Formats: sequence, C-alpha cells, structure tokens
Amino acid sequence: MNVNDYITQVAIRARKAAREMARAQTSAKNAALHRIADIILEQAAELADVNAKDMTAARDNIDPAMLDRLELTPARIESMADGLRQIATLADPVGEVTDMNYRPTGIQVGKMRVPLGVVGIIYESRPNVTADAAGLCLKSGNATILRGGSEAIHSNQAIAECLRQGLNECGLPEDAVQVIETTDRDAVGTMLQLPEYIDVIIPRGGKGLIERVTEQARMPVIKHLDGICHVYIDHKADIDKAINIAFNAKTNRYGVCNAMESLLVADTVAEQVLNKLGPMLIDKGVEIRGCGKAQQILSSIKAATEQDYATEYLAAIMSLKIVCGIEEAMEHIEKYGSRHTDAIVTEDITAARTFLNNVDSSSVMVNASTRFADGYEYGLGAEIGISTDKFHARGPVGLEGLTSQKYIVIGDGHVRQ
Amino acid sequence: MNVNDYITQVAIRARKAAREMARAQTSAKNAALHRIADIILEQAAELADVNAKDMTAARDNIDPAMLDRLELTPARIESMADGLRQIATLADPVGEVTDMNYRPTGIQVGKMRVPLGVVGIIYESRPNVTADAAGLCLKSGNATILRGGSEAIHSNQAIAECLRQGLNECGLPEDAVQVIETTDRDAVGTMLQLPEYIDVIIPRGGKGLIERVTEQARMPVIKHLDGICHVYIDHKADIDKAINIAFNAKTNRYGVCNAMESLLVADTVAEQVLNKLGPMLIDKGVEIRGCGKAQQILSSIKAATEQDYATEYLAAIMSLKIVCGIEEAMEHIEKYGSRHTDAIVTEDITAARTFLNNVDSSSVMVNASTRFADGYEYGLGAEIGISTDKFHARGPVGLEGLTSQKYIVIGDGHVRQ
Repeated sequence: MNVNDYITQVAIRARKAAREMARAQTSAKNAALHRIADIILEQAAELADVNAKDMTAARDNIDPAMLDRLELTPARIESMADGLRQIATLADPVGEVTDMNYRPTGIQVGKMRVPLGVVGIIYESRPNVTADAAGLCLKSGNATILRGGSEAIHSNQAIAECLRQGLNECGLPEDAVQVIETTDRDAVGTMLQLPEYIDVIIPRGGKGLIERVTEQARMPVIKHLDGICHVYIDHKADIDKAINIAFNAKTNRYGVCNAMESLLVADTVAEQVLNKLGPMLIDKGVEIRGCGKAQQILSSIKAATEQDYATEYLAAIMSLKIVCGIEEAMEHIEKYGSRHTDAIVTEDITAARTFLNNVDSSSVMVNASTRFADGYEYGLGAEIGISTDKFHARGPVGLEGLTSQKYIVIGDGHVRQ
Repeated sequence: MNVNDYITQVAIRARKAAREMARAQTSAKNAALHRIADIILEQAAELADVNAKDMTAARDNIDPAMLDRLELTPARIESMADGLRQIATLADPVGEVTDMNYRPTGIQVGKMRVPLGVVGIIYESRPNVTADAAGLCLKSGNATILRGGSEAIHSNQAIAECLRQGLNECGLPEDAVQVIETTDRDAVGTMLQLPEYIDVIIPRGGKGLIERVTEQARMPVIKHLDGICHVYIDHKADIDKAINIAFNAKTNRYGVCNAMESLLVADTVAEQVLNKLGPMLIDKGVEIRGCGKAQQILSSIKAATEQDYATEYLAAIMSLKIVCGIEEAMEHIEKYGSRHTDAIVTEDITAARTFLNNVDSSSVMVNASTRFADGYEYGLGAEIGISTDKFHARGPVGLEGLTSQKYIVIGDGHVRQ
C-alpha cells in the first residue's frame, strides 16, 4: 500500500472510532485511562527496551538535547501513567448543557458540549507526548492520529499498543488511538490534506514544523508559535512585588515559552527597580541587553538591538527598555510581542484595567509572574498545548479546547410561524 | 497598483483599524450604528440610483433570481437601517469576564471576551449583506473587509460609504469597514493568502464559492455547506405534533437551509402518520420521493433513489424513508445528513436523550420544527451565518461567534514556585 492510501485508511478508521468515542460513557473512558496506566507500568521494562533501541539508532543523528527528550527513563514512564490517572479525575466535558433558556416562542434553546471528532497530533522527539495527548483526546471523546518523530517510532508504537489494549479491554474502539507506522515524510502531507476525516491538527515542536503544518493544513490548526513575554513595571508599581515578579518570570525556568524575554520599566521608577533587580539578575547569570537609558543605570549591560526586542531567547538572556508609561509599553508589546503572555505590575486600578482590556495576548496578567500561564496553574488539569491563535482556543488548551458546542432545542410540538 | 499590493494595503489598514475597534467604547459603537442607519435612510434615493445602474449593467448577465437579490428596494434599504439599530440594542460581547476564580496559589484566573480582529466577508449578489455583516463586525469590535459580487460593486461601495461616514462622525476608524474596489477575480485569492492580517474568512454564497474559499484560505473559515435536514418521527411520537412539525419543517419555506429535506418515520406509526401527512403535503404541491414501504402506503409517490437522500432540494420536493427505529434513523442521518439540523418527534424521554446526545449536527431538536434553527429564533439577535463546521462556532453565528476569549490573571505580587 502506498503512503497516501495507508494514511487515508488510518483516517477513515479514526473517523469511525470517533463516532463511537463520542457516545462513550464517562465511566468507560475513565476505566480505560486507569487500565492504560496499569498496562504502561506493567510494560515498563519492555517500553524501556524498545526505547533503548530508538536511542541507539538515533545517537549519531540527533543533537544531545533531542536525545535527552527521546529517552524514556523509569521516572518518565511513571509520569505517563500518573498523567493518565490524573486525566481520569477531571470532569468529562462532553454532554455539558449550558445556557438553556426558554425563547418567546416557547422552545427551549441551549448548548451541548461535544467532541471535535478526529484530532491529528504531529510532534517531534518526546515519546511521552503519545500518552499525554492521546489521554486528553480519549477523555474528551475524540479519536487521535499520532505522528511522532521518526527517531521515536518504536517507542511511540509500543506506547500506542498500551493505549489500544486498554481501550479494547474497556470496550472502547482501539482505533481511537493510532500511531502512524511509517517514517515516510509524505505521511504528514497526506494527513494535512484530509479535512473530511481529520477535524483539527495540533503540531507540537519547533517553529519549522509548525510553519509547515500551518502552511499546508486544509483543516484548522491549534498552534503555538513564539512566547515573547513581557513584564511592564508601571509608575505606580509596588517596587518589591515588581522586582520579585520580574526576577521570577525570567529566572524560574529559562527554556519555557512563558518565561519573560523582555522587561519594560516606567522611567520614574527605573532607577529604584534596576538598582536592585539588575544585580540580582546579573548575579544569577542573566545577560541583560538594554536601551540607552537602561545602560545609564546599569553600566555593565550590553546595548539591545531592534532584533533583541523581537527575540524569544529561551535562555538566560533578556532585553530591557525604559518607557515613559503604559501607552508606550503597550505599543512596544503590540510591535514586538507574540501575543502569548504579558504582565503589568501596578497598584493603580485604572492602569490595570487599561492593560487587561487592551493588550491582545492569550494571557494578560496583573501583579503576577508570566510563569503562571499554564494549563495546570489555570486549573485545566492538563494541557495539550498553548494556543497563540485567536480562533477557537486561546492560551492553554485543555479538555474543553478539544470540544465544541452544538445547539439543542426542545419543544412540545412547536412549529415556526 | 497591482491587485496584490492593493489588497495587501487594504488588509494592513484593516489590521490597524481593528486595534482601534478592539478598544472602542460600547457607547461609541452603538452611536455609530445609529448614525449609519440615519445616513442610509438620508441617502436612500442615492442608494437606489446607484443600485439601478448595477441592475441595468447586470440584467443580461445574471439569472432572474440573482437579479432579484441584487435589487435594493425601498423596503430593503429600510430593513438595512432597522437591522443596524437592532444590532445597537444587543449586549456588547467584548470585555465580558467569565469563570473568574481563585486558584490554590492565590492568583485569580478568568476569561475575557475579545474581538477576533479582521473579518473578511466574501459574498455574492445581495448588497444588504454589506450593511448587515459590517454592522455585526462593528458591534463585536472587529474590522471588516467586504468583497461582494462584481455585479453589485457600485451598490456595495455606496453602502460602505454610509458606514465609513458614520464611523468617522462617531470618532471610530473608517477603515474598520472597507469594500474591495476592484472586480479583479485575483482579489479573493490574495485575501485568502494573508493570514497575518485577516483572522477569519466568512464566505456567503453558493457551494462553488464556499468550496473555493475553503480550499484556498490560509486562515480559518466560518462556512455553511448543505442543509440536508431530517425529521425523524419515533414509535412513541404524538401523531398530531409529528404531522404538524414535519409539515411546517417542509412547507414553511422551501428555499432555506433549515427546511426539512428528508422525513424518516418509524414503521409502527408510518401508516397513521402518512395517511394524514401524505395528502397534506401533496395538496400543498410537495413532491414526495419515498422508499418501497412508503410507496405501499402512499401509492402515488415516486421511488426515492440513493441520490435523493443526499440531496438538498431547496424546493417543494422531499425524500421519505420508513425506518425500524431510532438507531436506523440515526445511521441514516449520519450517512446522508449534512450535520446542519435534525429533529426527533417523540414523547419518550430515553429516545429524546439518545437523539440529543448522539446526533452530530449543529442543531439537534426534540419536538420542534427544524425551521427554528436561526440566529433570531435562538436569541442571538442577528446572525452572520450558520456554521456547519465544528471548530470555533457551530450553528447560527452571532456576535459571540465573532469574538474569542483570552485568559486574564490577577495576583498581588504572586510568583511561581
């Protein structure tokens, strides 16, 4: 079978399984999640063996960071199982009825939450994504087609087998989880051309992957591009809170999308803030690249270029600009930001309100670290990704982002005049 | 300027205007809607003159139905103004905060409703769409780029001028409404390739237009394909309600997407229902195409082909099938339906619950006519279209469908551990 036919067959099976999953009882879905967790732990040694083969084969072809992400350590295998059990504890979004009201005609109109259908996930090296993503899709009543990195293919297939066995043992269709079994690069291209069978694509990986998927996909894409997050310290900021928040947002973790990449400070408080915060950051090993005014306060820092303000460092580097107030800060964020997460530190309610209303980012914060932009911190339980798009889902995407709403209407023989 | 550059310039202006519209006060948006309604009435004679020129030019090129839709009668001009005033009375969705809760860390997390940004509308002959669609986008804080049919171009431009003047007089950016000023067919192609400036495309028109737009668009599309709507009359239906609902769903209006195209009747009640309903429909002039069993009850009707069950007639024609119960009905709907609107008539709560949960359509109804599937009937105030997709908006799309939600987080100096 050629790759086109193979992918089309996978997608047709997924569509069929999705119909069954949409009707599945919450209890069956939760039982399957627990059973899959059990199977993953039972199979831990076998999973590690298979993974070791992937690791050996990949060692000469991929960089050390990617190799690290590829590894299924005992802790990571346990964490996959724990993640599935945690998804089982989350409320089932499917079937939730909201906004049910009587209309003047006498009909009742409301909305019912329903699965999206078939979710395609295209990801790179981390094999634990296979369990995490499939688990979220399972709980939200969707079928999943998973296409992982070719270097992880045996690990992904072994994990998928655990998932399929668990589904099967709990009376659910095993085709609700399918891992693409070929490393042929055309497989992704074919997936992206099947909007009649695949309802949404979620790419997880580097920018190149996401751009290719967005460019080619004929169905909607839930995607996450850059995280160029700002903290703006306002004239009316509490200086201690400001310093804590900026320090935490930059240094809590460097390689994450919700880390602060750029700090904006109002001119009237710049000296007070930077005389304390600057040395803290520098001591921690952070390289600061600042505007001319910032260099006058912190004489040891480099000059920031235009490009610095538009860079997601994902490292111990940050840009710094002194601004004359909230309007200049918002303009800067508009121009250089990536609409991911931006925060203001202020005690002034009007400044807070202006910032919350006008900054067009997936998360907008007042007096809190950008590091809170996360599905767990927001109470979603788990996230399949963070969307920097506006359409459908924005910000951390959990179970609800994997569902849609249909209208339901109940009458008693009502007809339209 | 070539058409590519021209469209790109329009889109860049729209993006800029969208930023301003997102910040606009509700009072300013409502004032603009009322002012535009005034201007449209003041300019009624001029609009009619311009429209007469479009009518004359188009007379030999388009069919009578299209020519009728192109005409701006005095009643239609008044109705555009009324529609805008009605939009002004609707609640402003922008800025609505929901689900605001404290998290264990002490931060408050909620969602705030925000505009989508720039909405591209691609439509065919009806010039009143220009005012209706732009009005909805204006109220929801979006900018609009309108591309109407070439035969309506002067009418559309004249209406757009009223909109732009009203925006301008009320202190809002006139580029929040732009009508494409060229009839070059490449204009649409260029629009569809500008996801960085246009956030969503809404095609309104025939199937060919919608398919082309869906095929080519690099941004999300809110679209409406077929309306192959079913009424299923269950074993436990109240016969009088069933007959009324089916008759209304078919004959209330023929050329609309929420009209019943196919009737399914449970075998145990088929004779009782059809002996009364059949003659009523035939007397009304409806052509019935039925399965073999239906022909045994209604001897005068034609046989239905496979193709009939998959056809959106939009006319006084319908298909009819006798089924053995709800499961066969749901399978039929799954196979032949278009996921628009489907109804069950039953007094049995378990059948109603099964149908509501399992039928995968944008509107699912119990004991009500499919004709109720409509933004006004659902209380949305007005609709920009009915979506048969699942992603983002499903069913009638009103102001809320033109918005998204961002997360807002409020702390008091909170940092992440």
